[in-house]
Amino acid sequence: MSSSTSGIAVKPVADLIEELGRLPGIGPKTASRLAFSILRGPREDAVALAEAILTVKERVFFCSRCFNITETEPCAICSDSARDPIICVVEEPLDVLALDRTGQFKGRYHVLHGAISPIDGIGPGKLRIAELIERVKSEKPDEVILATNLDMPGEATASILHSMLVPLGVRVSRPATGLPAGGDLEYADDVTLGRALAGRRTL
Amino acid sequence: MSSSTSGIAVKPVADLIEELGRLPGIGPKTASRLAFSILRGPREDAVALAEAILTVKERVFFCSRCFNITETEPCAICSDSARDPIICVVEEPLDVLALDRTGQFKGRYHVLHGAISPIDGIGPGKLRIAELIERVKSEKPDEVILATNLDMPGEATASILHSMLVPLGVRVSRPATGLPAGGDLEYADDVTLGRALAGRRTL
Repeated sequence: MSSSTSGIAVKPVADLIEELGRLPGIGPKTASRLAFSILRGPREDAVALAEAILTVKERVFFCSRCFNITETEPCAICSDSARDPIICVVEEPLDVLALDRTGQFKGRYHVLHGAISPIDGIGPGKLRIAELIERVKSEKPDEVILATNLDMPGEATASILHSMLVPLGVRVSRPATGLPAGGDLEYADDVTLGRALAGRRTL
Repeated sequence: MSSSTSGIAVKPVADLIEELGRLPGIGPKTASRLAFSILRGPREDAVALAEAILTVKERVFFCSRCFNITETEPCAICSDSARDPIICVVEEPLDVLALDRTGQFKGRYHVLHGAISPIDGIGPGKLRIAELIERVKSEKPDEVILATNLDMPGEATASILHSMLVPLGVRVSRPATGLPAGGDLEYADDVTLGRALAGRRTL
């Protein structure tokens, strides 16, 4: 919005639109819509949002061991001695929440903060890969599960990590690929269906 | 996100995702993405955003005369005695900026804050229509331009306002409809093309 050129522009609104527009995926139109929504909404909502933003920056940081988000150092999972000596490698902190919710995994995590994607300029150096290798060397886990996404960057990252971890003598695994629970065979794509057949289990 | 149920959830992050999710058009996935972007980004950006939100709520309000956004009462346009005695009625504050930028209009504005849309539960009572009628009665402008949008709610609002304003003896107009500047005749819709023909000018 070039409203700043207009004598009748209201600077705080233009500022808010500009700040909101810095967020990923928020263009000028969406930023305007959000700014006017904040302007029209109750004062308490705006204060709660501003405080939530400041609180996150003040109290939340990344665990120095697993790089998950945390309010304590080390994080709750890293400081839990009852956890199994298995490291599950994920791309994002939200993946940790999703995996831990299943209750199927009682090990530890390592958050890479992304996946290798040369097209987006994300090489191995931008991820927490060196820290993972150091961790595996010092913690000597029984197994490393490469739970990166099943898209191109996730698969590429898993492949590279696999080649780096095997020489360390650790067991490296990847979650099963196949049909999702509740999924309809008819609508599955060829790759998923092919993998589901290749990985079939004897009943 | 039901992360609050997990023992490893980080409350400030869950809180921020919840607050962002209150904004219009921001679902849980987008809220998560924005929250992690704020978490990863520079501290200054987060502080600037939080301050912009608070500043807007502290310093910006609606002019009691035209209901446009303002930092002063009355607003810069309402207190400008050089403005023509014509009231241009618009739906949103951003419309005022757009119209004033053209330099083609030197009158005053009246912001309705929406358009009549029974399907969305927006009746005349939720808009600044009563205030417009009072303004026209007391200010006695030469003309009222109904510059609401050209969609269904905007057309309905213009139609209702027209029937309310005509008995007051004021001239009521609506901006010309036709082909947009730089527009391609081939791609114009039938309604626009029909109106452009009906409103043709002799050269």
